[in-house]
Amino acid sequence: MRTILWALAAVAAMIPGYGGEAAKPLVLASQGSFFVGGETKTSKQLNANTTGPGAGDSGDVTINQMYVQYQTPVHGNQHTPVVMVHGCCLSSKTWETTPDGRMGWNEYFVRKNRSVYLADQSSRARSGFDATKINAVKLGAAPPSELPNVFMASHQTSWILFRFGPTFNTAFPDEQFPVQAADELYKQMIPDLNGFLPSPNPTWANMAALAVQVHGAVLMGHSESGFFPEEAAMINPAGVKGIVSIEMACTTTLSPQQLSTLSKIPILIMFGDHIGDIPGRFGTIWTTNFDTCNKFVQQVSDAGGDARMMYLPKMGIKGNSHMLMQDKNNLQLADLILGWIDDRVEGKKDVRRK
Amino acid sequence: MRTILWALAAVAAMIPGYGGEAAKPLVLASQGSFFVGGETKTSKQLNANTTGPGAGDSGDVTINQMYVQYQTPVHGNQHTPVVMVHGCCLSSKTWETTPDGRMGWNEYFVRKNRSVYLADQSSRARSGFDATKINAVKLGAAPPSELPNVFMASHQTSWILFRFGPTFNTAFPDEQFPVQAADELYKQMIPDLNGFLPSPNPTWANMAALAVQVHGAVLMGHSESGFFPEEAAMINPAGVKGIVSIEMACTTTLSPQQLSTLSKIPILIMFGDHIGDIPGRFGTIWTTNFDTCNKFVQQVSDAGGDARMMYLPKMGIKGNSHMLMQDKNNLQLADLILGWIDDRVEGKKDVRRK
Repeated sequence: MRTILWALAAVAAMIPGYGGEAAKPLVLASQGSFFVGGETKTSKQLNANTTGPGAGDSGDVTINQMYVQYQTPVHGNQHTPVVMVHGCCLSSKTWETTPDGRMGWNEYFVRKNRSVYLADQSSRARSGFDATKINAVKLGAAPPSELPNVFMASHQTSWILFRFGPTFNTAFPDEQFPVQAADELYKQMIPDLNGFLPSPNPTWANMAALAVQVHGAVLMGHSESGFFPEEAAMINPAGVKGIVSIEMACTTTLSPQQLSTLSKIPILIMFGDHIGDIPGRFGTIWTTNFDTCNKFVQQVSDAGGDARMMYLPKMGIKGNSHMLMQDKNNLQLADLILGWIDDRVEGKKDVRRK
Repeated sequence: MRTILWALAAVAAMIPGYGGEAAKPLVLASQGSFFVGGETKTSKQLNANTTGPGAGDSGDVTINQMYVQYQTPVHGNQHTPVVMVHGCCLSSKTWETTPDGRMGWNEYFVRKNRSVYLADQSSRARSGFDATKINAVKLGAAPPSELPNVFMASHQTSWILFRFGPTFNTAFPDEQFPVQAADELYKQMIPDLNGFLPSPNPTWANMAALAVQVHGAVLMGHSESGFFPEEAAMINPAGVKGIVSIEMACTTTLSPQQLSTLSKIPILIMFGDHIGDIPGRFGTIWTTNFDTCNKFVQQVSDAGGDARMMYLPKMGIKGNSHMLMQDKNNLQLADLILGWIDDRVEGKKDVRRK
């Protein structure tokens, strides 16, 4: 399978704009990883051993922290850093190599001279989660009903909900997602443990803190995390220089004060194609999401803000899925976002924006 | 806190051998991520919703896959690639920026012209895990006793077990772990879900497959995964060009055939200091581990193999902890491993090895 992917990547490398970019060495000023947030919890349910070393011991663990991996290009100080946060049942893998082996947005943005910060949501992937409830139930100290719901998205659900096509394993004729590599997407889909988190979701405050820590950033969210940049800004707008919200539900019940906060931050919302083409029970999800976000854009505009809806089909860009950062035209879409950042966030003349 | 870490990093940058290295741009021929292994599971317990879309649906998810992140330097073809696999309650974060903000082994090895592959163990971090049992228990379809044990290592356990000092928050006088940054280590410690895995652990076969896929690799494991390179080689030795096993328990009950397989692969085992200095219930763990590994080295040697124990105190290198890839002298230890690879795996004259 990897051989096939490498062959695909080799073919991709011959396409101008893909491999042309990937073929050049990537020169980094620095890279690394660190955590934002986190708090200490004391528990007797750190494991479910009933005998042996550690059984029944009380101890401290750190929970609610957020893992962040970053790369800074040599000319990274020319632009505002970008923080990318993945959606449901996914990790920061979302932004890396696409399922069919092409360059992801993380590297492309770095090659466009942005420092990029990839954050695993608190409770997901390398950020860890608070597992004490699982052990408490196993030990009989809590009833099974207290277990949080773990959400795993099936292949079948993902295909439809991500708008690859109208029925499982049938693609829309103009589908931009590389459906032949869908199995590689399914491998990056992991259990969603947000049900284990307290409220409000600590990822929001962690994103706000990260933006301050890097001296200002554009916050980008997708799907489950699509509105997280707005939530972060409403907690602390100090570091939030711009917001990119992709393919999500918007909140339309914000207070005048919240809208006032958001009206001071440039906001870009992006939606792909086939919003109204999904049959069955997922049919209304996308039309509703799209409607709420159009309403939100209007509310921010009415409050004097700078919010823009990029609805790709309306711009002549057809066939994009929910996973548009992995679609075949992902770098074209990245250019739209980069151009918007240059223009609206940084106030530079944008030569890419249509 | 990050301000402090950055200040520490700035100080570290002034130390020859640390910042001297980190201050130079990092030039990569390529980077990316992909998965090895994985299989499809059909389940009705993908979530614990009892009403609404998806409740009670049967669907497919992918489990047991292994997430791999890689970087290839521009001169990466000069050396054998290195695969690094983390230990219990940790992720690939282990090998990245140290808790006090210095360069980790992942970047250092790349700067020494090796392709480096960081693998999150199957069931950990970005590799995901099979969460269906949790939902089955919540739904009443399985008893709580069937929940696998989740293991979370407390701060208190980690301090002692990782040999930072004899009692919690007291360090050995010559301790090499940057104990002032222990809180940053605790943030990277996440629930260990290996109890959810089938037997044998799929990470072993995934590591063997990865070694084949990259046309030969040195496999490195640590602690829980310390003997995984050997396990991988015993499943399929074709891609395993060398083994680096760090701070773990060794199996001393291998068959003559298994020892024969391992005798054809250069093996390096590394242990730090204070093996016998841990009081209390963890006291015998390290002395026992060390004894089993010395016995294993002897068994491989008796079978005609090339196994070496690098016991650092015996080489005059004092004070190293269990987390020696994060210790203050981590790059000195990396040089020992690099030199061993050059010499034993690649047959090159090693100018670094003492």
